[in-house]
Amino acid sequence: MIIKTFLTALSTTIPSLDIKTDTESTQHWGRDWTVHFSTDCQAVLFPKSTEEVATIVRLANEHGTPLVPSGGRTGLSAAAVASKGEVVVSFDKMNHIGQFYDADRMVEVEAGVVTKALQEFAESKDLYYAVDFASSGSSQIGGNIGTNAGGIKVIRYGMTRNQILGLTVVTGKGDILELNGGMLKNATGYDLRHLFIGAEGTLGFVTKALIKLEKQPVNLTAMVLGVPEFNSVVALLDRFGKALNLTAFEFFDQIAVDKVIAAGHTKAPFDSQAPFYVLLEFEAMTEEVLDLAMSVFEQCAEDGLIIDGVMSQSVGQLQELWKLRESISETISVFTPYKNDVSVLISHLANFISDIEQIVKDNYPDFEICWFGHIGDGNLHLNILKPANLSKDEFFEKCQTVNTYVFDTVKKYKGSISAEHGVGMTKKPYLTYTRTQTEIDYMKAIKAVFDPNGIINPGKIFD
Amino acid sequence: MIIKTFLTALSTTIPSLDIKTDTESTQHWGRDWTVHFSTDCQAVLFPKSTEEVATIVRLANEHGTPLVPSGGRTGLSAAAVASKGEVVVSFDKMNHIGQFYDADRMVEVEAGVVTKALQEFAESKDLYYAVDFASSGSSQIGGNIGTNAGGIKVIRYGMTRNQILGLTVVTGKGDILELNGGMLKNATGYDLRHLFIGAEGTLGFVTKALIKLEKQPVNLTAMVLGVPEFNSVVALLDRFGKALNLTAFEFFDQIAVDKVIAAGHTKAPFDSQAPFYVLLEFEAMTEEVLDLAMSVFEQCAEDGLIIDGVMSQSVGQLQELWKLRESISETISVFTPYKNDVSVLISHLANFISDIEQIVKDNYPDFEICWFGHIGDGNLHLNILKPANLSKDEFFEKCQTVNTYVFDTVKKYKGSISAEHGVGMTKKPYLTYTRTQTEIDYMKAIKAVFDPNGIINPGKIFD
Repeated sequence: MIIKTFLTALSTTIPSLDIKTDTESTQHWGRDWTVHFSTDCQAVLFPKSTEEVATIVRLANEHGTPLVPSGGRTGLSAAAVASKGEVVVSFDKMNHIGQFYDADRMVEVEAGVVTKALQEFAESKDLYYAVDFASSGSSQIGGNIGTNAGGIKVIRYGMTRNQILGLTVVTGKGDILELNGGMLKNATGYDLRHLFIGAEGTLGFVTKALIKLEKQPVNLTAMVLGVPEFNSVVALLDRFGKALNLTAFEFFDQIAVDKVIAAGHTKAPFDSQAPFYVLLEFEAMTEEVLDLAMSVFEQCAEDGLIIDGVMSQSVGQLQELWKLRESISETISVFTPYKNDVSVLISHLANFISDIEQIVKDNYPDFEICWFGHIGDGNLHLNILKPANLSKDEFFEKCQTVNTYVFDTVKKYKGSISAEHGVGMTKKPYLTYTRTQTEIDYMKAIKAVFDPNGIINPGKIFD
Repeated sequence: MIIKTFLTALSTTIPSLDIKTDTESTQHWGRDWTVHFSTDCQAVLFPKSTEEVATIVRLANEHGTPLVPSGGRTGLSAAAVASKGEVVVSFDKMNHIGQFYDADRMVEVEAGVVTKALQEFAESKDLYYAVDFASSGSSQIGGNIGTNAGGIKVIRYGMTRNQILGLTVVTGKGDILELNGGMLKNATGYDLRHLFIGAEGTLGFVTKALIKLEKQPVNLTAMVLGVPEFNSVVALLDRFGKALNLTAFEFFDQIAVDKVIAAGHTKAPFDSQAPFYVLLEFEAMTEEVLDLAMSVFEQCAEDGLIIDGVMSQSVGQLQELWKLRESISETISVFTPYKNDVSVLISHLANFISDIEQIVKDNYPDFEICWFGHIGDGNLHLNILKPANLSKDEFFEKCQTVNTYVFDTVKKYKGSISAEHGVGMTKKPYLTYTRTQTEIDYMKAIKAVFDPNGIINPGKIFD
């Protein structure tokens, strides 16, 4: 069998390489957080250096063995699922935090470093790693780079892309490239670094990254606001966004709040209930900023945009308010939700939501819908919860049907069918809703440049 | 003659297309600000729409006619010089500022919009276009995108790349691609937008861009500091950078100040003279920030890092101080300077400068050197001024010899031989000092994907 020859060649070339082939391991490392793809992973490799990864890729080319990268396996698009007999390359043993460049506020990390570990390292230097999201305790930097991970602070700090000053990659041909070397300014030809960011591991493997750190934010303060209708959410973004330098502007609905409270994660932010909630955050550097925030709040309440609201007075209260938002994903996961992760321009948000609400009303009359998202970036998560009386397969089939209506609406507003989760296998059939066939043809040609034998993460993004 | 057939086909297909073939026009539009490449431009075309550009490219492919893009012609790397009988495509007639998206703080512009016009448009909306540099009155957005232009506010707002939320391009094959559509979050495959940014018009022509605007900065305040030695410049960046949110941190030497004052652009900032000067800028949102800036200043003066200093008290004074920095390029242009535009990590700056100073002392004993640069981004401009008694050719030959010493030092510190000016033709022979041959081979393969017939800006970046 071909895989066996490949593994034998590997053991000979890298005698110290840890190779796992037991079912427990292949089941564990062969999949991500998506539930509707089963894994057929043949083996899991644990390289310890960029050179070992390059050797693996070169041998895989020789033996025609397809490889799938595996980070924290928290992905939601099945980009890291080995579903067709591939061998998985795990970065679990490449988790070193390397050289710190104080004057550049930059650190080199291996691809397997967990997001949270990088956040803590930054804190130890009195700095801040600005990419944050619910799975930060498990997700790895390599995976974040592969999907250009976003999260809750994008409105202020941008996506993962904005923090990446350099990359070491192994291409699908087995070449090691060190891209951009950490410089802020480097105008020497095509920036291949940006091609690898968001490529979902289809052009090669990211093995190291030079990461920009930010200054620690000062006195972060959050408000949670109860809002009477969706249009008010957009109006509030405009008003608070103009007055304050926001670090986050999130939204969620009453169903999300009910589930989070029922699961015991936190308590209601105030006595009133509201169809929608906004959680906004800003740096309250001075008393003036706090006064300004309060006066915008009062004006908005007077104008009927806010039903009720609360502002954090301490770090403890700030963290408590964030639980309302950050516990949603985990809380609803027991309902096997069908997740959509779409984005449109903020200018189109109100019309877009109103179209989607109509579709949902017409097509999912019996389903519970849980809305939340990063409104400040135009990114909405539409979660359809599975009724207990429906089987998983029946439920997903129904969802898939309605999917096309949702994606037609995304296309109408020239939006994205995947804002931050990536395409992987789950969104692959819908890629043409956001990218034209001509663009996809160029992408395929680029894939062929870096991975001419189609060895690296085949069948992801496109076929 | 082939060009003639091409022009005839063009006139038939786009009867309204303005085509200039007179010598004055071909000399004017056929070159950029570099002086040591002559132009052999055959004709200049002035399309008025993306569709016209696509038609031009398709016909050029049919006729085998090479095309060179032309924006404001302020480039310093000869990337927009038609030196080998090419036809120039000017974007002078594609200078419309299009739709403004208030809620997204974004505007669509055609490639021929002049930087200054975009800055003024942003101001009219109480917003800010953050990319600024000395040639903003002539440079066009399309050219800025081609070189990923930097300038004086990079430390705070990043390069042109950071402001580009969407691009319309015509590839070398004549396909029109609309890339990313203005979204902050879009994880649907390879981000081709970033491949075109900084490609110096070698993959195709940028015809439109969706540009992110920023909030207006508040009460910008500048300090000019006289500094005893270069190491103090780096120490000051560290101290002020940690205390304040800097919007700029520039440096220049006494020779630059002398020339600017002699040319009558402004007056000396204070009575003392210093080998080096720092111009730093920050938003003085509150009195506390001003007090903090003053206390850092006093501590630095006490520690011997500053000889003398001045702080702007009004917008007029701010503008006056900036003239010290912004007039340098124009002032020294009469000395036919040989320009180097290099960057290294800030962590390496002090060692790098000391190595370069030694090289200059050993190799240019008779030449006047004018140093300035964007120290906050690790970007230095080393300008060697031509002595009056040396011919242009003799002077450039001498400079080229020493170039390799400078670039060897750049390579030693893993820096960039072109931080923001691009490669074009002037830095093409030195590309391997920053990019490996393997990287260059991948770049060539990508070029072949978008421009298989080698029609678009041939001989730029690489052969």
